[in-house]
Amino acid sequence: MRIIKLTEASKYNILENLLKRSPNSYDQFESVVADILYDIKKNGDEAIFRYTKKFDGADINAQNIVVTQEEIEEAYNLVDSSLIEVIRKAIINIREFHIKQKQYSWFDSKPDGTILGQKITALSRVGVYVPGGKAAYPSSVLMNIIPAKVAGVETIIMTTPPGVDGKVNPGTLVAANEAGVDIIYKVGGAQAIGALAYGTESIPKVDKIVGPGNIYVALAKKAVFGYVSIDSVAGPSEILIIADEAANPRFIAADLLSQAEHDEMASAILITTSEELANKVSAQVDLFVKELSRTEIIQKSLDNYGYILIAQSMEEAIQVANEIASEHLEIVTKDPFNIMTKIKNAGAIFLGEYSSEPLGDYFAGPNHVLPTNGTAKFFSALSVDDFIKKSSIISYSREALEPIHKDIELFAEAEQLTAHANSIKVRFEK
Amino acid sequence: MRIIKLTEASKYNILENLLKRSPNSYDQFESVVADILYDIKKNGDEAIFRYTKKFDGADINAQNIVVTQEEIEEAYNLVDSSLIEVIRKAIINIREFHIKQKQYSWFDSKPDGTILGQKITALSRVGVYVPGGKAAYPSSVLMNIIPAKVAGVETIIMTTPPGVDGKVNPGTLVAANEAGVDIIYKVGGAQAIGALAYGTESIPKVDKIVGPGNIYVALAKKAVFGYVSIDSVAGPSEILIIADEAANPRFIAADLLSQAEHDEMASAILITTSEELANKVSAQVDLFVKELSRTEIIQKSLDNYGYILIAQSMEEAIQVANEIASEHLEIVTKDPFNIMTKIKNAGAIFLGEYSSEPLGDYFAGPNHVLPTNGTAKFFSALSVDDFIKKSSIISYSREALEPIHKDIELFAEAEQLTAHANSIKVRFEK
Repeated sequence: MRIIKLTEASKYNILENLLKRSPNSYDQFESVVADILYDIKKNGDEAIFRYTKKFDGADINAQNIVVTQEEIEEAYNLVDSSLIEVIRKAIINIREFHIKQKQYSWFDSKPDGTILGQKITALSRVGVYVPGGKAAYPSSVLMNIIPAKVAGVETIIMTTPPGVDGKVNPGTLVAANEAGVDIIYKVGGAQAIGALAYGTESIPKVDKIVGPGNIYVALAKKAVFGYVSIDSVAGPSEILIIADEAANPRFIAADLLSQAEHDEMASAILITTSEELANKVSAQVDLFVKELSRTEIIQKSLDNYGYILIAQSMEEAIQVANEIASEHLEIVTKDPFNIMTKIKNAGAIFLGEYSSEPLGDYFAGPNHVLPTNGTAKFFSALSVDDFIKKSSIISYSREALEPIHKDIELFAEAEQLTAHANSIKVRFEK
Repeated sequence: MRIIKLTEASKYNILENLLKRSPNSYDQFESVVADILYDIKKNGDEAIFRYTKKFDGADINAQNIVVTQEEIEEAYNLVDSSLIEVIRKAIINIREFHIKQKQYSWFDSKPDGTILGQKITALSRVGVYVPGGKAAYPSSVLMNIIPAKVAGVETIIMTTPPGVDGKVNPGTLVAANEAGVDIIYKVGGAQAIGALAYGTESIPKVDKIVGPGNIYVALAKKAVFGYVSIDSVAGPSEILIIADEAANPRFIAADLLSQAEHDEMASAILITTSEELANKVSAQVDLFVKELSRTEIIQKSLDNYGYILIAQSMEEAIQVANEIASEHLEIVTKDPFNIMTKIKNAGAIFLGEYSSEPLGDYFAGPNHVLPTNGTAKFFSALSVDDFIKKSSIISYSREALEPIHKDIELFAEAEQLTAHANSIKVRFEK
């Protein structure tokens, strides 16, 4: 794995290279997606069934579009029972963490009769998209459904593409059922997003759509945004590790590779103050690559977006980490908590040598749906907050409004909104 | 004002009509905006100055693009001193309410060495867009800057278009200065959004752009979303009032008109169980329209999107209010708090006959930037939450990881992510 000394020039080049992973021009896909969405909006179920035949090769109709109780039971027989046990353990941790994120309605009152507050209400209906085929990860199903459940969403709808045989991935079904999904529809792609956004005869319109998907799904979500809410569009995965000379090079190398295996666009970066560690990690990465599967993906990802960077000081390492704003940040140093206080931008922060990133992907409890590609500067992990909305509460008495009514009238008139001023005035006319 | 009895059919037609206010096809504007954004990205300041000359007729350059201390002082001389006093009073209330929204970092620990938490960090740099001309509302300046300030944003940048004379609206300057803006640039339109998103020689790139604007500004914000964060794109304003026979028809009529005067696309709706109130409000609206300014806007807004609806029961009124999901909802009944508990969807809820909507626009404290056009089903008012992000914190000891490490390996292997499994395994190899 390549080792580069951090300089202003190398830093600039690396940041530019990482940004390249966010492709800007999807014109040819966009028009395809727009056509599908229009078709779903206009033709509902009929279009859904037609696209499912065309793209998934499956015969789906109004009778078999919903996954049945029997199909869920069948899935339990197909999934390894030890995996089901692990899924249940993970759910306990994920639920426990997300419960701590819950926000509550509040109000504040004054003796003059003023009440101000904020009312929290869960979204009524949420759609969770789950990809099919190789991208069907049960852990992602948990991470998308559980926060909605904890928020108190009334109806959690899942859509996922069927195979040619009209069946859905059993791991997906088990994870969804364990997490508490309400209903599962056999439909995928942009057509599923259209159905969730506009509603069809079989599938009801939702308030928000979450979950990962391919480029068609991502563009469809972007297109319906505003009409419904969506989670942020996920980009390629990243890990950034800050380490000093105390770090175990074998652990660091293994953690870098755990992101590099995701896809060719994934990025794995080590920033260290120790040239010795840099060399050892680089050598260890080469050894691991030979042992692991997915070698081709790993090699391309490392060649394109993998770096071992040598920083002059820990301050410089922290500064670059904040500029990269990584999805996952591991801090493997003598005093990780001290460094954590200086981190401004990271989706999830893993502290110390036993907090390896896959612990967070599967088990610890925090959400693994995280902001990618530098967006940790302004976006957060998927959370209970994504499934609630807030209404302001304003209640004034006559006693409270009277002493300030002329102030409001003056402000409204200064903005030339006389009907605004009038609505206050009429309350104090003789 | 027209009075309609609520039936399934009339409800359906009204909901369809309201949705029409969200225009879907902006193709011709979109390409103009895309060209401007590309130009700004490529040519920076030079393009900014060129567009400002073209669209605003003002000669702006690197020397005069920043509003000076002298210009701010001049603005104070131009603004009525009683308005400045009212702005200061409003700021106290707005700040007090938003401080209550602050969220804090938290962590939870277990005796085995596990620490899980959520770290709150304010965004570093935020751009606030403020329209020029007649749409320059000092109250909006306050509502956009104060939550960012309370969140702890380091640098709050404002952009607003200059007049032909190169000057900025004095009310805007005073409000921004009082609210605590850090720097103000004289640039407006899509070019301002481009500058904030990409950065130019004079204007630094920000993490998030907020604030209302015309169609060019709205489309530019949508186009740069993902590259930076944005607030939700504002649609036309709305008020919905639920009232029973106890309500004062003169107050209700005045409040309906306070929204109708905003623009021709604004909507003002009363839902009442009292036919007598419906008739009185309708007559009162007609009387007020003759007295008020902005008559033409009010009349068009009422003709297109104004309704007085008669409901069979309070339950029906509440159900329709939840379907409309209004930006502003007034509850003017004998027991408004009881009805409030049944409201799922509304941007801000005003309770009782002295809580008129303009009180919230200017003075009470809650934010007046609210979700419009039915999006209160899933969006919330602008708040301190819009200016922070959250990083998950995960710290496990060897003691905490050891008993579960095989579970994580099993989960990762079930998803065929062997490098994920390996990163856990290496920590327990002999």
